[in-house]
Formats: sequence, C-alpha cells, structure tokens
Amino acid sequence: MTYCLAIALEDGLVFCSDSRTNAGADRVSSYSKMHRFSVPYDRSLVLLTAGNLATSQAVVSQIQRDLEQDAEFNILKASYVSDVADYVGRLSVEEQGKYQEQGGPNAGFNAAATFILGGQIKGHSPELYMIYPEGNHITASDLHPYLQIGETKYGKPILDRIIRPETPFETAMRCAIVSVDSTMRSNATVGPPLECLFYRKDSLQPNERYCKLEEHHPYLAEVRESWDDSIRSAFDNLPTLDAVFAEDE
Amino acid sequence: MTYCLAIALEDGLVFCSDSRTNAGADRVSSYSKMHRFSVPYDRSLVLLTAGNLATSQAVVSQIQRDLEQDAEFNILKASYVSDVADYVGRLSVEEQGKYQEQGGPNAGFNAAATFILGGQIKGHSPELYMIYPEGNHITASDLHPYLQIGETKYGKPILDRIIRPETPFETAMRCAIVSVDSTMRSNATVGPPLECLFYRKDSLQPNERYCKLEEHHPYLAEVRESWDDSIRSAFDNLPTLDAVFAEDE
Repeated sequence: MTYCLAIALEDGLVFCSDSRTNAGADRVSSYSKMHRFSVPYDRSLVLLTAGNLATSQAVVSQIQRDLEQDAEFNILKASYVSDVADYVGRLSVEEQGKYQEQGGPNAGFNAAATFILGGQIKGHSPELYMIYPEGNHITASDLHPYLQIGETKYGKPILDRIIRPETPFETAMRCAIVSVDSTMRSNATVGPPLECLFYRKDSLQPNERYCKLEEHHPYLAEVRESWDDSIRSAFDNLPTLDAVFAEDE
Repeated sequence: MTYCLAIALEDGLVFCSDSRTNAGADRVSSYSKMHRFSVPYDRSLVLLTAGNLATSQAVVSQIQRDLEQDAEFNILKASYVSDVADYVGRLSVEEQGKYQEQGGPNAGFNAAATFILGGQIKGHSPELYMIYPEGNHITASDLHPYLQIGETKYGKPILDRIIRPETPFETAMRCAIVSVDSTMRSNATVGPPLECLFYRKDSLQPNERYCKLEEHHPYLAEVRESWDDSIRSAFDNLPTLDAVFAEDE
C-alpha cells in the first residue's frame, strides 16, 4: 500500500509521501513515490503515485522517454497542468490495458494506479489534480483543499481539523507529517522514509522546501513524542463525562 | 455504514456505537446498534451490530424469540460468553444464507453483518468478541485491547495512541467518543446519536455507566470544541521543521 497527499494552500502546494511498497507480506520494499519534473523559471511539477508499482513506474518512465525523444506531447510542451493530468491519465490507462484480458492467466488482474499531480506552468496559477485509474481527474477546492491517494482514511481526520487554504505552509507540512505518521502507526503497509516538499506559488523552482525523513530521523522521533504527549494532555483537558452521568441519575 | 467499538479494560468493558444507517444516499435513518441482554447478578451482555440492517435485526429478533420460547439454547442457558458468540455467528450465517442464491435476482447480493459481543457470565471473567460474517470470531488481547466494526479506519489512530488495558474507564469512554466523533466528521455515513456504555467487571449489572449523546448534546459540543482547540495547540507545540531544512542547506 501507500499513502500520499497534497495540499493546495494560498502560498503554494505541499506534497507528502511514504515509501513502502508491498506485494504480499514477504515482498516489502522502499521506493520513492515522489517524482519531480522542473524547468527553472518556466514550470515545476510534482507527481505522487499509488497503486500498482509496475504501472506507476511505466508511466514515470514513459514521461521521461517522451521528454528525451521530444515527443509530440510532453511535459515541456504542455500549456496547462491539466493537460499534463490528461496525459498522465492516458499513459496510465494505456499501461493498464496491456495486462487486461477477458480470459487467460491475467483475467481479473488489476493493475490500477492513482496519481496526484501538482505544480505550476509560467503564466498560470498553481494547479493540483488527482488522477483516477480510469484516466480522468478531479482538482482540490477551497472547501476541500487537499487530495489523498492510497491508504487515505487513517490520516484524514487530522487534515479535516487543521487544513484550510490560508494555513501557513510550515503548519501544513507538519500536519501532513502527522497524518502520514498516524497512518504508518495504524497500517503496516505504509512506511518510511517520508518525503515532504513545498512548492511556493510563482517561484517556478523545483522545490522551496524539501525533506526526507528516515525511520530514525530525530525530527520524526521528536514529532512522535510531542504529538503523543499533546494528545494525552488533550484527553486530560476534555470535559469529563461526570456531568453527563449525573443528569441521568 | 456504521462505526462501533468496544474496549477490554482491566476495570471492565466499554462499548460505543453510532446510530446512522444508510442504503443509498436517499435512505438514511437512525437505528440503535447497541443491544443489551441482562439478568442482574447472573449475566450481562452487550451486542453491537454493523453491516446489513436486515440481517442484524433478524439476528437480534431471533435472540429475543429464543428467550421467549425458551429454546434449546438461548442467552440465559449459555455457560460462556464465547458460546453466545458461536450462537450469534450461527444465527447470522443462517440469516444471510436465506438470501444467497447462485443465480436469480439475488445473485451477488451480500447481506453480511458483523457483530461485537461483550459481557460477563457469573463465575467467569468478562469476555469480548468480534463475530465475522462467516460466523467465526476473535477476541481482544492485552496488546490489542479494542475491537472495531464498520467504518473503522478514521477512528483507529486515536485508539492506538491512548488505549491500554489499564486505562481508566472514563478516559476510555472519552477516547471512544472522540474516535466516533472524528469518524462522523470524516464520513457522512456515520452519525449521531452516539451510545456509550461501561460494564464494570464483576458487577453483573446491565450497565454501570450509560449515555446517549444526540447531535446537539452540550457534552458533544464541548468535546468537539475542546478537542479542536487542543489539536491546534498540539500543532503549535510540535517542533518546527526549520531545523530539518537548515541541515539540508
């Protein structure tokens, strides 16, 4: 499994991803799920991947090839980020189609992959999309300023409580790290290293802020300890149920 | 959907359930998912239900009938809570079987239901089980002292952080309420009223503490406000990422 998320802030875009892949309990490994494509002062794009690893690797590799071979369409020729989202969707559907058969040994095989694509192309605002296995996509909104792929549920409540478009990027990155860390704690198929990146609006630079946090990174240890302590005192601060029980008696 | 959980503490058992049912977005209603069966000073049992409402209602109704008709086996005749868990599993599988056909209009129809059963029978320790749609069951353990059914993921991280067998019951109930409240916030198919019950070990009374919290219950409002505030200050207290970025530069 995987857990990746991206947040559309007034100040720019935050991306965060785990690095664990598994194909059965005895086939666990680490792969980066954060891919960057950038031409300074012209465009900066980040692609996060979840789902079938063969499909997502093939898509990333085709994006690179299309750049090297100066294909009819590639990331450098796109005018809008949404055109790149269409393109990623097309590559993904093509790749999945190679392994889908009505009968035969692959019958019922699912090579689905899901992507988050975000970034900015000169002359336009930053854009953020989630691309479904079917190739179509949705964007974030002010009312729902984040997108998630993979094992999304464990880490959602904290995003719902904290993230607003006006949240400062550093707070949003911390929130993303807590969201991924909570998920790692609840689900063994999501694991470190964590990668976290902030793209500042209109910078057109590959990344304003980037960090990679390995399992025993001191920051991750500090966050866990601080968060655990705070959650415990949050509990101590909650109103007790005594008043509720008293009214029933 | 549904979200119910139960916690096995050294002091007894805590149960908590939401009340929303839905069969499509235009068939949303409220049903209690907490059912109590009790003979003071002899036995006290609580059954929580998730999944197909027709199945879970039929199971609860058959339990009642078997009591009224003094059937060969009923809850009053059980020597162990695990025997009751077997019985609930049997009733559930029988009920689901009525609507499973190889072909015909019901082909592919899934009437699965999942249950949590907990309580105590005189002369034995309290027991807690989760009963799968297949009719078999698992119990909680010291290392994993809680069980969940329904929409379980959103509310799991907080349980993982707080719940230990030695947690006081009032803290565990508050934690259960926060867990269900976070789930309600993230998933529209889980909704109030919340029911929360504590069975104190060896009391053999139907409930030591019980509360039902409607949507606008002042306690729920207070918990939400306090929790939101605390989570926000927990964020303010987290170590900032500045040190991490500094080392990369």
